[in-house]
Amino acid sequence: MNNLAALQELFQKEVDQLNLGTAPSKLYDPMHYIMGLGGKRLRPILALMGAGIYGDPKKAMSQAMAIELFHNFSLIHDDIMDEAPLRRGQTTVHKKWDQNVGILSGDGMLVKAYQYVADCDAALLPEVLGTFSQTALEVCEGQQMDMDFETMDTVEAATYIQMIQYKTSVLLGCSMKVGALVGGASKEDAAALYDFALLLGTSFQIKDDFLDVYGDPEKFGKQVGGDILSNKKTLLWIEAQRRAAERGVNFGAYADMDANASKVEAFQQLYKDLGVDAFAKAQIDSYYQQSLDALKKVAVEEEKLRPLREFAAWLYQRES
Amino acid sequence: MNNLAALQELFQKEVDQLNLGTAPSKLYDPMHYIMGLGGKRLRPILALMGAGIYGDPKKAMSQAMAIELFHNFSLIHDDIMDEAPLRRGQTTVHKKWDQNVGILSGDGMLVKAYQYVADCDAALLPEVLGTFSQTALEVCEGQQMDMDFETMDTVEAATYIQMIQYKTSVLLGCSMKVGALVGGASKEDAAALYDFALLLGTSFQIKDDFLDVYGDPEKFGKQVGGDILSNKKTLLWIEAQRRAAERGVNFGAYADMDANASKVEAFQQLYKDLGVDAFAKAQIDSYYQQSLDALKKVAVEEEKLRPLREFAAWLYQRES
Repeated sequence: MNNLAALQELFQKEVDQLNLGTAPSKLYDPMHYIMGLGGKRLRPILALMGAGIYGDPKKAMSQAMAIELFHNFSLIHDDIMDEAPLRRGQTTVHKKWDQNVGILSGDGMLVKAYQYVADCDAALLPEVLGTFSQTALEVCEGQQMDMDFETMDTVEAATYIQMIQYKTSVLLGCSMKVGALVGGASKEDAAALYDFALLLGTSFQIKDDFLDVYGDPEKFGKQVGGDILSNKKTLLWIEAQRRAAERGVNFGAYADMDANASKVEAFQQLYKDLGVDAFAKAQIDSYYQQSLDALKKVAVEEEKLRPLREFAAWLYQRES
Repeated sequence: MNNLAALQELFQKEVDQLNLGTAPSKLYDPMHYIMGLGGKRLRPILALMGAGIYGDPKKAMSQAMAIELFHNFSLIHDDIMDEAPLRRGQTTVHKKWDQNVGILSGDGMLVKAYQYVADCDAALLPEVLGTFSQTALEVCEGQQMDMDFETMDTVEAATYIQMIQYKTSVLLGCSMKVGALVGGASKEDAAALYDFALLLGTSFQIKDDFLDVYGDPEKFGKQVGGDILSNKKTLLWIEAQRRAAERGVNFGAYADMDANASKVEAFQQLYKDLGVDAFAKAQIDSYYQQSLDALKKVAVEEEKLRPLREFAAWLYQRES
């Protein structure tokens, strides 16, 4: 019951039955629309797995839904900020309706997320609510840092890692932690599980940067080289910029190339020449290893953690 | 201690010391900026008064701040949706910074509001949190209804009243109720106090519509006739449209007039001819009276409610 496919199915059933409200339709229809677009459902699955370590994964269903609602609220607003036309291959909310609908239905969705958070044992509510709000605020901070980076000449690698952790990984940590808490975890276990998911998420995000450069176009869901073409400050970009400066390589000339396939090829080669591909791989491996190490602090039988190790290995090996 | 000016000062001190965060500055600066723009602080004062009935108003300070933060979050996002350049005579957040900053700092502010909500006795948290989220969702519904009205030919007066209640009055009710709850009110008292503030807020909003038409330009803070010039569906407009249709008056001809002083004068006369001015006054009085009636259900000595009656009278008599 605690395996990936079963939990995905369990959660999907909840999404299929989701009724957040009906009127006004422009407030609620977009919520159901984006929740219906699918996705890997990594966050709710982590919440269900967290509870599953200690008993019935379903105990964390409301928390899983809260976090998936929060995640989708952030996607609606991020897509407005990024002026993105597509999300998961479908029209974004602000394009399908309009920007005001996107802003307001996103706001409503954040409130709905809190309603699901509140559906929890009163004794646990302060801890669960506090974790959720702290995480939500960090996600906002990460998003702002990401936008700030766009107009900065250089970014430190450590600052970049903090940004991706805030923007993405902390929500994975939060999912795991609140799932575990409502499942019956001790605070110590919950903290270690938070670290596991945070670090795994960090590895996952760096892998995302890596796959954008070296992914197999047949398997990678997005356009390979998309980050390069938009001069996005990924970890590889940042580290290459730093190493290029050290070695007297004119990085600016690469950055200023016309946005076409030659630019992607030039960067793939530049990253190799500067050893940035190996650096990124080492970072991916390091965070992955640290995430597994965090699991050792969870005071349960090793067997109970097997689904988490499988989940981590699945994410680590992914090529899309 | 429980009077209006003293509570305003008490709350202002908290605002002056407010530190929601510092970095990234584009996330937190706009929050402090809009909180510093002032305003009547009706909502926090109601929260403090709610607690003041039962003891120390300061017991509700976190709830008062939560609600003022929520209110200001909604102003930032509403101003984006309305493309408003000014708020309280100052540049709106999305104009001072940019739209993305407005969206994201608003989101962060909503989360901060929840952090203040959470600063409450654990035994009361489920009730307080539930009230807050329910209200927040209604505010979103009211805002969407308001936007929907813009493209509708006609709106029922009852639907309009529901919209203003959701968009504005429920938050006054929530303030009063959570303030009372954290101050030690019974659920019955808290419910009656909610009704008091909800109904008072409804009277207040209709008065807003009325003052837009018949306000003294010297005293009214906004341009008199602003709603008329923008063909806004206020209660007077809606009722006039209905009565005009009954009496064969060509309301459309009035609505289609050029937006200048003549149009305002024409509507002032039309509303009088159709008895809509008296209708609005009667509605203002009726909701005011109902709000005072609700106070009778609060099981405390009459003297404890005197500040609320004074507050209600002050709002009822306002001309700006």
